Amino acid sequence: MPTDARAADFRRRLDHAAEATETALDALLGSGALPGEITRPSRLLEAMRYSTLGGGKRLRPFLVIESARLFGVEGASALRTACALEMIHCYSLVHDDLPAMDDDDLRRGRPTCHKAFDEATAILAGDGLLTFAFDVVADPATHEDAGVRAALVLALARAAGLGGMVGGQALDLQAETASTPLTQAETLRMQAMKTGALLRFAVDAGAMLGGANPGQARAVARYGDALGAAFQIADDILDAEGDTAALGKRAGKDAERGKATLVGLLGLDAARARLDQLVNEAITALQDTGRGDATGVLAEAAQFVAARRS
Amino acid sequence: MPTDARAADFRRRLDHAAEATETALDALLGSGALPGEITRPSRLLEAMRYSTLGGGKRLRPFLVIESARLFGVEGASALRTACALEMIHCYSLVHDDLPAMDDDDLRRGRPTCHKAFDEATAILAGDGLLTFAFDVVADPATHEDAGVRAALVLALARAAGLGGMVGGQALDLQAETASTPLTQAETLRMQAMKTGALLRFAVDAGAMLGGANPGQARAVARYGDALGAAFQIADDILDAEGDTAALGKRAGKDAERGKATLVGLLGLDAARARLDQLVNEAITALQDTGRGDATGVLAEAAQFVAARRS
Repeated sequence: MPTDARAADFRRRLDHAAEATETALDALLGSGALPGEITRPSRLLEAMRYSTLGGGKRLRPFLVIESARLFGVEGASALRTACALEMIHCYSLVHDDLPAMDDDDLRRGRPTCHKAFDEATAILAGDGLLTFAFDVVADPATHEDAGVRAALVLALARAAGLGGMVGGQALDLQAETASTPLTQAETLRMQAMKTGALLRFAVDAGAMLGGANPGQARAVARYGDALGAAFQIADDILDAEGDTAALGKRAGKDAERGKATLVGLLGLDAARARLDQLVNEAITALQDTGRGDATGVLAEAAQFVAARRS
Repeated sequence: MPTDARAADFRRRLDHAAEATETALDALLGSGALPGEITRPSRLLEAMRYSTLGGGKRLRPFLVIESARLFGVEGASALRTACALEMIHCYSLVHDDLPAMDDDDLRRGRPTCHKAFDEATAILAGDGLLTFAFDVVADPATHEDAGVRAALVLALARAAGLGGMVGGQALDLQAETASTPLTQAETLRMQAMKTGALLRFAVDAGAMLGGANPGQARAVARYGDALGAAFQIADDILDAEGDTAALGKRAGKDAERGKATLVGLLGLDAARARLDQLVNEAITALQDTGRGDATGVLAEAAQFVAARRS
């Protein structure tokens, strides 16, 4: 496929995944989310919907859907897993935005959850989304094989937990008040936990849903790790040079808060060179899946992650 | 078994379950909790340990262990499930104690997590414990049958989520600021979600681990529902008449905050009568498990829940 056509195919698939995810999240968090209850925590449900619906690129759901498709799986299995992952991503944003954490008022150009509702509701909405994610994955509707469902729960919990996202966020907060800044190795590790683990899970999940063989699973995992690292560097570069309007959140806040970033450690030029290298690593890894041209859309995703402006 | 011997047997088993749970939680949240990490979120792990270790009656773990034993299961399966449930109970206490929620300084006679650490760490410690609970349940070490593990994850997520604990907590907060107080039916429903769902899960989990037949599972579920309701009424009575020293937390705070309680709705005498009735319901339900004298320790647990002074 020529380069332009590939890029157009990618954009079409990204948009399609975003729409499918929005519709599925709306249904999962709809009135059916509380079957037969005589008392409904309506404000909580509203806050959970506010925090998950209404856009975003839906990069993580896209990666689940496309990785699953690479291994022959389409439909509810991939979409439900994609929604569960997005719920965890969204919960993390809700909690990260809280006054005790990053204290942000704006997210995707809208008031953050605790601003639109209140702090207690935001804490509970995050807790509710995190919990609901495991409900969705463990449900027989996600995959007929309970072994796959249990493996997905385990991988998702590890990606989201102490050794993954939550641990990375804790390290990031710790670093802000530490007497010595994080080294490059520590910054990379922190970022791999905080941001990389969920992105890696996204593509691992596709391999699990599709019963990929061990070699394919390893190849996809290498892609996921490189993509995750590229995503974070691109994010750091954006924060360093971006503007608030395009980001939909405040730019320059990482530097303000003295957060550990690769741009801060390496400078902009070296960070951009490292970004290019990671994109190449990601694309090379895809070749080892043995799926040939079918990997094109994921290769394009790596380019997209590196080039994004918001 | 004579009444005195039964009570002694119960206390011995309760203590034994508490010790086993403490040891297992210590191991799960030990240095092995982060295999191979070059960077450790040590403060977060410390906060997670602070919030789960060091006592408590461990009623929920006890119920998992004894329900599993009723259906022929002992050892790691029951203990790991018990630990996962306790992690969720403990996370809920950490988040409930936050300034934006109940704003409590004291828990089990010690500073609450956000007082001992800080608010951001307490939020993340709760998130980490909630996530780790699903990690533990989904791990093959918990049960050889992935179908059982997936079913446990699903039941636990439902008990802890929007239609269970988190939803109940949201309703409780909503009621504090509502213009009209909750009715009796609404209060019962809110309490069944907030407190009852996890207690019900505890005994359901035992039935799932042990492959109970549908009639046995229904009987145990009825026991769990009655026990959960009894637990909450006993809690309301304690709060209304208890003293701070015995409780290890501030007494009378429910009335102060205008929380919906059955004591407030019915008065103390009617609440006590309802409590007796629920204990009888719980004990009657046990007879339908067809496990005869083996149910004695769970019957004793229902008495204990009703009679507890802290």
